[in-house]
Amino acid sequence: MNNPLYYKRAMEYRNLIDTLMGDKYFADTILYGGEVVNVITREIYTADIAIKGKYILLVGDSKDLTGSDTLVIDVRGKYLSPGFIDSHMHFESSMLTITEFSRLSIPSGTTTLIADPHEIGNALGPIGIKAMADEIGNVPNHIKLVVPALTPDCPDLETAGVDVTSDDMEELLNYKNIVGIGELQGYSNAKHVYKNTPEIITDLLASTIYARSKGMVVDGNAPELYGKELASHIIATGGSCSCHETTSKKEAMEKLRQGVYLFMREGSTQRNMAECIRAVTEEGFDSRRCILATDDMVAADLEKLGHMNEIIRRTIREGVDPIEAIQMATINSASYFGLEDVGVLAPGKLADIAVISDLNEMKVEGVFIEGKLVALHGELLIDLPKYTYPAEVKNSVKRGPISEKDLEISAAGNTAKVRCIKLIPDQNLSRCLEEEVRVSNKVVLPDVNKDVLEIACIERYGRNGNIGKAFVKGFGMREGAFAESVAHDTHNIIVVGTNLRDMVLAVNRVIEIGGGLTIANKGKILSELRLPVGGLITDELSGHEVSEKIAELEAIATRELGTSVHAPFMHLSFLALSTSPVWKITDKGLVDVNNFKILPPIVGE
Amino acid sequence: MNNPLYYKRAMEYRNLIDTLMGDKYFADTILYGGEVVNVITREIYTADIAIKGKYILLVGDSKDLTGSDTLVIDVRGKYLSPGFIDSHMHFESSMLTITEFSRLSIPSGTTTLIADPHEIGNALGPIGIKAMADEIGNVPNHIKLVVPALTPDCPDLETAGVDVTSDDMEELLNYKNIVGIGELQGYSNAKHVYKNTPEIITDLLASTIYARSKGMVVDGNAPELYGKELASHIIATGGSCSCHETTSKKEAMEKLRQGVYLFMREGSTQRNMAECIRAVTEEGFDSRRCILATDDMVAADLEKLGHMNEIIRRTIREGVDPIEAIQMATINSASYFGLEDVGVLAPGKLADIAVISDLNEMKVEGVFIEGKLVALHGELLIDLPKYTYPAEVKNSVKRGPISEKDLEISAAGNTAKVRCIKLIPDQNLSRCLEEEVRVSNKVVLPDVNKDVLEIACIERYGRNGNIGKAFVKGFGMREGAFAESVAHDTHNIIVVGTNLRDMVLAVNRVIEIGGGLTIANKGKILSELRLPVGGLITDELSGHEVSEKIAELEAIATRELGTSVHAPFMHLSFLALSTSPVWKITDKGLVDVNNFKILPPIVGE
Repeated sequence: MNNPLYYKRAMEYRNLIDTLMGDKYFADTILYGGEVVNVITREIYTADIAIKGKYILLVGDSKDLTGSDTLVIDVRGKYLSPGFIDSHMHFESSMLTITEFSRLSIPSGTTTLIADPHEIGNALGPIGIKAMADEIGNVPNHIKLVVPALTPDCPDLETAGVDVTSDDMEELLNYKNIVGIGELQGYSNAKHVYKNTPEIITDLLASTIYARSKGMVVDGNAPELYGKELASHIIATGGSCSCHETTSKKEAMEKLRQGVYLFMREGSTQRNMAECIRAVTEEGFDSRRCILATDDMVAADLEKLGHMNEIIRRTIREGVDPIEAIQMATINSASYFGLEDVGVLAPGKLADIAVISDLNEMKVEGVFIEGKLVALHGELLIDLPKYTYPAEVKNSVKRGPISEKDLEISAAGNTAKVRCIKLIPDQNLSRCLEEEVRVSNKVVLPDVNKDVLEIACIERYGRNGNIGKAFVKGFGMREGAFAESVAHDTHNIIVVGTNLRDMVLAVNRVIEIGGGLTIANKGKILSELRLPVGGLITDELSGHEVSEKIAELEAIATRELGTSVHAPFMHLSFLALSTSPVWKITDKGLVDVNNFKILPPIVGE
Repeated sequence: MNNPLYYKRAMEYRNLIDTLMGDKYFADTILYGGEVVNVITREIYTADIAIKGKYILLVGDSKDLTGSDTLVIDVRGKYLSPGFIDSHMHFESSMLTITEFSRLSIPSGTTTLIADPHEIGNALGPIGIKAMADEIGNVPNHIKLVVPALTPDCPDLETAGVDVTSDDMEELLNYKNIVGIGELQGYSNAKHVYKNTPEIITDLLASTIYARSKGMVVDGNAPELYGKELASHIIATGGSCSCHETTSKKEAMEKLRQGVYLFMREGSTQRNMAECIRAVTEEGFDSRRCILATDDMVAADLEKLGHMNEIIRRTIREGVDPIEAIQMATINSASYFGLEDVGVLAPGKLADIAVISDLNEMKVEGVFIEGKLVALHGELLIDLPKYTYPAEVKNSVKRGPISEKDLEISAAGNTAKVRCIKLIPDQNLSRCLEEEVRVSNKVVLPDVNKDVLEIACIERYGRNGNIGKAFVKGFGMREGAFAESVAHDTHNIIVVGTNLRDMVLAVNRVIEIGGGLTIANKGKILSELRLPVGGLITDELSGHEVSEKIAELEAIATRELGTSVHAPFMHLSFLALSTSPVWKITDKGLVDVNNFKILPPIVGE
């Protein structure tokens, strides 16, 4: 055994053992007299936690481990829980760097995050994923990435910035801070890829099997899949996968029964926990494979509501015992990912601890990461330097400006029956309907009285210049337009508007600033947010600044444009998600997700 | 991605997916209408299991998967459980090859075994361990090995055949069919090694950390360890370990609380489940880390009682719900070892299935391994060729015969106060006491009336010729002697007897036959069992023949020698186990396990 790395850690452990077995050394820190939340046995009892270096030395009576230099912190009456784990999330959804996200989430008790850099992977390919893996070195919390499974998700129906191959995948699975493959899109695969592009399946399976052979996870998702389709999807992930797109109790029961780890999503827009948890609260299912995850969180929610502590709190509200709810964001998650060092409070584990003053309300008072008190009363106590991304992941928007002509949808006659995507608030699923609107000079016009607006998706990577166009209902805007380079999952530019002039203006401003969010009305840009990293993330603003900027954009959208949807930019961004039923828009046009084909915007064409 | 292995398995999966998603292919076998025991959700419900090749295709409605060549087996009214897993066992304890053990255990529903080749490792070192890893290719069930952690367990107190180094360990961890490090002896480490031979600890920790870095397990055991000693032990295993030597409810609770996976042992001699399970039945602990294991099983018990099914049945008798009890030998075990392919019945898992006719009695009617019906009504249906070990693992006894002089214990006077190991039936712990016995011609004599017999341990590997001697109480023999080359854990020759002549005869016959069990009385060998493989295993006899031979040896020990202990050879073999309190015998002498020193057999010397 010659590897010095193993000896380095062996010396760390040796130091712990020498402290425990002898009487010469003592704990660095002792949390004295806390109420330990034991997520293994499902008990709470009074005990001390003795910490040395990064590790927990002992949970129990720490008397013999208290030396003259030991910092003893009285935590009597407080609950001590393992730090929380978010098992599936995309930093890109917050538009924040990992650093700024961590700044906002650590004080809520989140100490481990498993992120799928799916958005930057679609925009930039391996260099984007590696750039995020590199940033992890900047933060004190534990962050692991899963490599996006398939980029793009629907090869025939959309254009990504880069097509990631299985060779890329192999290389990425050996890069630092990577723990598996992320989010293999079950719906898309079962309904489309297996049938329509079967040539890529064997290659995809080889990647899956390679990841499994390395002991890594393969995340999946499987909205509305049952029976043979669900079974196919599970097999494609190598025989066990997660699903964070389960929206009904019936689905939750089926997923758990079939061996799927149920990631109960509770994020800024999608909130599925309350339905999923009924498999436990109503049916009495063993909850060991029930796991909490946020998927997509915006900065404002992190600031105002908290992070995993808030999700656990909501789970408790659904009738789950607090310890069992905490299991769903600690031991259950760590078990799934094979993270041996975190998720329970026991000797030899990393000293990642949330100190909670009110268990039912999940009020997190203090947070330890690797034995260090990093947050207290919601404030970060440590210096966390701002992180700047390298130039190679910036300037991802590579197309020239568009004109009104580019956005026109033509039809003959005075009216046309058009296909309308119907937005569903707080879901990334959509519905579909048809509406009659006016045609003027052969151009179909949006109708604000019917809430039928135009929506378009503009390829932005300089690959083909595609522009997909259709109609949408549900935003309720009376004037103006807004656009963004955040448009799941390929992140072309998506725009919705009441008139072409403002739509063009909003899109061209997104192009001009190298990616971001813009809002236009009456020929003027009202506000904007630059997202220089892949057109998805800002490394210029803090979490709080992003949160304020988005609040400003949303307030303008409401006040000036008259939209009735909360978080309109996030809702818009999901209308491009071609893996989630039923109608969506990509750069190739209006996508009929269930039938995996492009539909013309005008009925009958 | 160029590795053809991944593509080979990808094609297998592809074949499953094509069957599920198309209408051209069908299942090979369908188990129709069974009562599926779902160990994830803790439910039982009616469903079919469709099998293709080695894998489960679907659990649910198999109608569309039934083709004209599909074998449909009606299992209505029968329970379908994942095949059982024995999480900690030593094949050597049965004296059988892996092949013969499998022949006896498969019909009981055991489809996966995790074995610690600790005995052959002590006797032969890496070549013994590799020889067992090689035999795995001969059997249809799934067998994984853990590499013995430390050989010998107590470097100062006993002599093994080979001292295994951390370089050996590294090589072994990369050998086929290896999943981790086995049974790091916590009691020995905490009480002895850390204090008395600290120089080996860092090396040991480096091996532990290396195994962890490969995602492998590190088993431990920690009898009677609490507080700081238990914490030290857990840290030495890299922060999470199993313990299969827990004998009280209090210990069980403490182990679970501290993050230890509780392997509830229930074997031929040690039966600890009934105590351990009280943490669940009386305290309501979450049972996800409660796991059933046999440790040591003799062939006769396998034949008469069954294997894991019997252990599950006993667990049910202690008040555990049958599904929860089955979890303890399926999903809980698979989760601990990271065995993704087994332990649950779901799409993509190996089709390892126990068909059970009576759930409370755990009557196993049929067994499938990798989709093939391998056993029915207790009979193996497949051809399982006998396995012969290579010459290099035979002839492990390398010493000449002993004489009566070698076994004499001297004392002055007419009587002597002697130290007596007190055997505890059905435990591998012992007690200690002192007894007054007669001395004749300066030789201390056993006293059958007081049940004080002589016991000796003779180094057999040609390394130093040591002979340790002491007295023992509890066998209740009136005449004769018996000896064996099975003597945990270093497996020198151990002998107990009422007189030196028969003891010498029994030992010399063990040497002559190259290892095995012998029984002598009045100057004659009454019976013997040759164990040519490392002096521990026979590759000459079937399980049934071994079972009959041991029954014969035991019957002779009872009838002719008058012993009152059942399984006297197994009890004798554990009296050399120097890691288990309180007094034991090794080639170095009488071991005071708690104080880790050698005591003279005569009090006051």
